[in-house]
Amino acid sequence: MKINVVESVLKANDAVAAENRRRLSAAGVLAVNVMSAPGSGKTLLLERTIPRLAPERCAVLVGDLQTTRDAERLGSATPLVTQINTGTGCHLTAPQVTAGLDSLALDGVRYLFIENVGNMVCPAGFDLGEHRRVVLVSVTEGDDKVAKYPTLFQVADAILLTKVDLLGVLDGYRRERVYEDISRINSRAPVFEVAARTGQGLDPWLAWLQAQRSA
Amino acid sequence: MKINVVESVLKANDAVAAENRRRLSAAGVLAVNVMSAPGSGKTLLLERTIPRLAPERCAVLVGDLQTTRDAERLGSATPLVTQINTGTGCHLTAPQVTAGLDSLALDGVRYLFIENVGNMVCPAGFDLGEHRRVVLVSVTEGDDKVAKYPTLFQVADAILLTKVDLLGVLDGYRRERVYEDISRINSRAPVFEVAARTGQGLDPWLAWLQAQRSA
Repeated sequence: MKINVVESVLKANDAVAAENRRRLSAAGVLAVNVMSAPGSGKTLLLERTIPRLAPERCAVLVGDLQTTRDAERLGSATPLVTQINTGTGCHLTAPQVTAGLDSLALDGVRYLFIENVGNMVCPAGFDLGEHRRVVLVSVTEGDDKVAKYPTLFQVADAILLTKVDLLGVLDGYRRERVYEDISRINSRAPVFEVAARTGQGLDPWLAWLQAQRSA
Repeated sequence: MKINVVESVLKANDAVAAENRRRLSAAGVLAVNVMSAPGSGKTLLLERTIPRLAPERCAVLVGDLQTTRDAERLGSATPLVTQINTGTGCHLTAPQVTAGLDSLALDGVRYLFIENVGNMVCPAGFDLGEHRRVVLVSVTEGDDKVAKYPTLFQVADAILLTKVDLLGVLDGYRRERVYEDISRINSRAPVFEVAARTGQGLDPWLAWLQAQRSA
């Protein structure tokens, strides 16, 4: 096992992240780090978002411990997809994103989505060089996740409550509890309720994304 | 920030875990480390499991970054509950479990459930001193999680497919894909399909737990 010193790792990561951000800004690309627990719907959201934004202007880096399943799914939305396998790594790192950028032809790209490893804790601490951080939480995970995993929600520029088409079958889910916790933890981020499967709620999310490019 | 050397941290954790396991075995307690993504239903499973096993013989240590919500919920199943808040920690550690054990009166206890932080990556690497490792994955997380997060499923002694009462509303979920991935990654662990909300499938899971005490 490699011996790492935590502080040095973070400093090195942050320096590479800053360079990634400079490179992306110079290329006119808005980079969005998409984070959530496993199975909250990151990939399906991107599958539905990219065709609406303009596929030829979107690229994706997608992180998973193993498999290329997400890249295969996203490949039908845009050809500019690179899968990053982290092995046992619990989040993406800035150097992995640098390698991912090297693999993509970014000419003409306006949006880069970086789909992080599904994890509600570790990705919060690692800058990848993104311009915006988006956090998803599905209603099927229960109404207590914002309070129990506040660090991820604290760093969010936007929060998406996903799978809202299933609200009708979730007895006892209290949506107002989620909003109360968000207002306490992060009053800055807008909240979008979406069901990517049905298309419900995608318009305000798309409008927000487009507004971030001109912000 | 504290500077930690990864290898030393793991060695120290393992030594404490071994001591926890000796202590629990000597007390006649079967310790079960319960792991999953956030919102897969660990707490509800324990709320339904403990009354059926015999509440006065069950204790729980429950890990979360913040809040005491899970301990409050489990408090109605057994008085022997201790919440461990990890702050920003992405998994429980053996020393945290030692402190938790010090807080509980284990006399007469036969089952200790250790509900880990909701995380499909990091808990896999940290021995807590448990005798069995149980991994949950809910059908609402999609059918690809075993393949994408294999490290956690590899260490499982039993796998629970949860929230199966929602299968009817999940278009495109392929249960056989989950079983194929499990058979490839861990052919040793039994798989239980449960819906804690309705009670469906709990009997085989309870029988398995009871069998582990005599194993």
